[in-house]
Amino acid sequence: MPSKTKSGGKKKWQIVAAEAQAHRDSSIQEALAIEKNHLFGPLLPAQVTALDPRTIVQKLRHGELDARHVVSAFLVQAAAAQQATNCLTELLGTRALNRAAALDAYLVSDNAEKSGPLHGVPISVKSHIGIKDGHMPAGYITWWNNISPRDALVVQILERAGAIVHARTTEPQSMMQLECASNLYGVTTNPHHKHLSSGGSSGGEAALVALGGSSIGVGSDVGGSIRVPAAACGIFGLKPTAFRVPTTGWSSTPPGADPIPTVIGPMSRSIDGIEMFMSAVLAAEPWTVEPALVPLSWRSPTQLGLDNRPLRIGIALHDGTVMPHPPITRTLTELADKMKAIPGVEVIDFPLYKLDEAWAIVSSLYFTDGGKADVAAMNASGEPVLPLVEWILHENPGTKELTREELEYWLEEREEYRLEYAEQWNKTGQWDEELGKWADSVDVLIGPVAPGVATRHGTAKYWAYSAVWNLLDYPALAFPAGRACKEKDAPRKERSRKFMSEHDRTNWDLYDPDLFDGMSVGLQMVGRRFDDEKIVAVYRYLQAHGCVDEIPR
Amino acid sequence: MPSKTKSGGKKKWQIVAAEAQAHRDSSIQEALAIEKNHLFGPLLPAQVTALDPRTIVQKLRHGELDARHVVSAFLVQAAAAQQATNCLTELLGTRALNRAAALDAYLVSDNAEKSGPLHGVPISVKSHIGIKDGHMPAGYITWWNNISPRDALVVQILERAGAIVHARTTEPQSMMQLECASNLYGVTTNPHHKHLSSGGSSGGEAALVALGGSSIGVGSDVGGSIRVPAAACGIFGLKPTAFRVPTTGWSSTPPGADPIPTVIGPMSRSIDGIEMFMSAVLAAEPWTVEPALVPLSWRSPTQLGLDNRPLRIGIALHDGTVMPHPPITRTLTELADKMKAIPGVEVIDFPLYKLDEAWAIVSSLYFTDGGKADVAAMNASGEPVLPLVEWILHENPGTKELTREELEYWLEEREEYRLEYAEQWNKTGQWDEELGKWADSVDVLIGPVAPGVATRHGTAKYWAYSAVWNLLDYPALAFPAGRACKEKDAPRKERSRKFMSEHDRTNWDLYDPDLFDGMSVGLQMVGRRFDDEKIVAVYRYLQAHGCVDEIPR
Repeated sequence: MPSKTKSGGKKKWQIVAAEAQAHRDSSIQEALAIEKNHLFGPLLPAQVTALDPRTIVQKLRHGELDARHVVSAFLVQAAAAQQATNCLTELLGTRALNRAAALDAYLVSDNAEKSGPLHGVPISVKSHIGIKDGHMPAGYITWWNNISPRDALVVQILERAGAIVHARTTEPQSMMQLECASNLYGVTTNPHHKHLSSGGSSGGEAALVALGGSSIGVGSDVGGSIRVPAAACGIFGLKPTAFRVPTTGWSSTPPGADPIPTVIGPMSRSIDGIEMFMSAVLAAEPWTVEPALVPLSWRSPTQLGLDNRPLRIGIALHDGTVMPHPPITRTLTELADKMKAIPGVEVIDFPLYKLDEAWAIVSSLYFTDGGKADVAAMNASGEPVLPLVEWILHENPGTKELTREELEYWLEEREEYRLEYAEQWNKTGQWDEELGKWADSVDVLIGPVAPGVATRHGTAKYWAYSAVWNLLDYPALAFPAGRACKEKDAPRKERSRKFMSEHDRTNWDLYDPDLFDGMSVGLQMVGRRFDDEKIVAVYRYLQAHGCVDEIPR
Repeated sequence: MPSKTKSGGKKKWQIVAAEAQAHRDSSIQEALAIEKNHLFGPLLPAQVTALDPRTIVQKLRHGELDARHVVSAFLVQAAAAQQATNCLTELLGTRALNRAAALDAYLVSDNAEKSGPLHGVPISVKSHIGIKDGHMPAGYITWWNNISPRDALVVQILERAGAIVHARTTEPQSMMQLECASNLYGVTTNPHHKHLSSGGSSGGEAALVALGGSSIGVGSDVGGSIRVPAAACGIFGLKPTAFRVPTTGWSSTPPGADPIPTVIGPMSRSIDGIEMFMSAVLAAEPWTVEPALVPLSWRSPTQLGLDNRPLRIGIALHDGTVMPHPPITRTLTELADKMKAIPGVEVIDFPLYKLDEAWAIVSSLYFTDGGKADVAAMNASGEPVLPLVEWILHENPGTKELTREELEYWLEEREEYRLEYAEQWNKTGQWDEELGKWADSVDVLIGPVAPGVATRHGTAKYWAYSAVWNLLDYPALAFPAGRACKEKDAPRKERSRKFMSEHDRTNWDLYDPDLFDGMSVGLQMVGRRFDDEKIVAVYRYLQAHGCVDEIPR
């Protein structure tokens, strides 16, 4: 992004970092100063931030709350989340309160039924997604002064649907970490354990949302960056199919030009938050402005043909290379057992397919320049290369500068892998000669998001479980499915089976039943391309049948 | 496509060409020998081939015709078309008659209502699209022995829907010509004038379909290759939005890997043929097998929300660089005037936007290797480089070997251009602040397919009018809109205005009112991405109101 960036000049990188942090701190002080007139209302702030977004909209429409009170409660809670986890880059107090006042005025004019579907819902936005006049450093010191001339398209749409943008959140150096550490802001920690990571790259969003500092978070994902932090922090996170949610207005290449598209998607403590985001964004028909998008509205289970028919759910326990830690396997097995008891649900073993090959392909396509632009961005300020960035740029064998021929080779490999995976998925059903179609293939697949719960800082190096679905462009919903439990899960010493790979041994070395005890276990539900609605609908069906809880933490 | 190709060995290229032609001729002789038992039926062969595909299906289902009779009539007519235009590479007599016999047997068992939507419709297929055990040379001598192991996915789907594949057709050297000349088969001529081209690259299909030798043709288009020959020969041709019709099983890269995707689409003398093809292909849900496709069935005008609302139709007379020949401009102007008289239709001037820039981008992305693979393919056999191939590879400034950085540059330019064009399209309407959407933008755009009618052989070098819609991936329907008329159209000498460009002068030099007199004038109707259904529906609406005729020739 050379055209949009400005060098940090001759300042030492520490000075820029101090500037960024001072900007954050003063924005928090300013927000706390202006919100206090509205902080007291019919509900305590902690009661307001505990509400799910649908209830917030209802209470506002019914006049039981006003938007200024709601947003004040979230601003205070966001400031607290910052204290606990270091998840913020900025609070937008003035903007949020002004917006809330306008929404309240609108309702006074008796427009309740015309108010937007996100009326008054406070949303937070990962910092590389543009906010007018906001810094957009994408995790690098040298890009701190990259200022966005306007709100990103998705932010414009959410606000028109009634949402209030009140907070911006951290992202890691290079954005290519499954944790959340940068020289600008330091480390974002897990809201449930200081020694563990929030996950990343949308780690600031996950920590903030998990602590009730935001009702819906806007994250992004090219290898697990929505799902891994959602799982680590115990919330929901949807990586939509590419080209459904607009990406115009972030600090990256234009939509459609990347070999592995980065997608924007929602994070929330409630499945409602996920669905409200998707449905509001698609109702705005963003494809007229961003033509890389596919014109497909958010469809109901009836429109998807899901009514009154059995569901077939695939289960994948592991990928044949790395065995997930015992809490993941136990939770997945327990969920499978619960699902088997639901009438009309068939649970099928559906092993993951060649994830080592998937990683070889996808990691060859992440940095087609071998990371040169990233190294240059770090060199420009002299900021240190953090360990996980050092790893992805210099130790991961996939990262290498490609010639055009090599790029074209990997693009063909990508397409061949996609064809093969479709065949695997079809073969969970059978070919219906009469209809000339595959029938009874699994509707969704449930498996691990990652080979463990929230990682110890600096250790998240196995991306295959999440990145394969970016390579395939299949939508995937991370959802909280249980908690690690040192009594129920196998103790560390009990591992006696042969390791499947060096990665497997490394991952087992990271297992610590005492450290992980009580941490949220996230799983992911995956659908075929453009089946975003289906995975949400299947989740709701399982929830209605008591297989999964809304918010386990 | 190095992995799938075999060298023609040490044979002189003329010997390979003779072999290909002998294969074609013997296939025709064989077909004519086996069809004769079925040639006589309730209708004369010429009456059968004059039927539109929907009538063919109905008469077969009602037992008024049998499929063996139908396919025999088309085989005879195809052989005649070959005599007239040199459009065939092979007749599939045995396969077609066997298939027809099976279809007839199926109906005898009283299965009429269960028969497929294309029951008994003879279809022809451009030769680079695989037919089991068939040669697939893609226009090159050296690839003559490239044999397809199976039918292409689209062919499998069409046959399951009831169609009968009976013929394969010519394509030009390199496939990258808007005419149809190869060293394998020579020149395919226009069915209405020997001295003019059939257009290309799907020129064999266009000539065959125009002469009644096939009911629906299967062509392909990356720069005009369905639409230009359809317009030249006076038939319909639809370039669908990419990733709707499957391309698995042709002699090219896997679907999804190309910077400008080549699409497969239908050609027919009837708009019904276009719609029957699209609806049958999408009903098979090909996206389960080819995951690059978008899961979107063929939608009705009601589903598209077109009922009982006004239509807004944009008209583009020229692109600011090359003025089309007088027959095109006159026909377009006459059509605009007729449309203005229809209640509920608003006609809006919507100039084409930066087509010179579009050509610079798209022609930089056609041959990312600068044409090296194509030159190597020609060198391998020693076949001469034909003039239009020489032009596209060596004279067109866009063709150059790209580095990875340059490829990525042009991909970003592609996306920027797509964003800009969407903005142009939106601005034919206005922003609705209340709805948060653009409203009343044009539904479709009608403009030239090319800057003239069928070209004199070897002169089709101006691609911008057709190729821009490949760059944008907008669906475009070529339709027959009138005929050139030396009395009505401006005579050659009357051109007195200043030329807009050197291309404009060159194009004017090619205008010959006497030569072109009576030739079909094709226009194209363009929609936004995935609006394939809409352009067909709008065409039908205009037809119902007498603005356009079904088959002007």
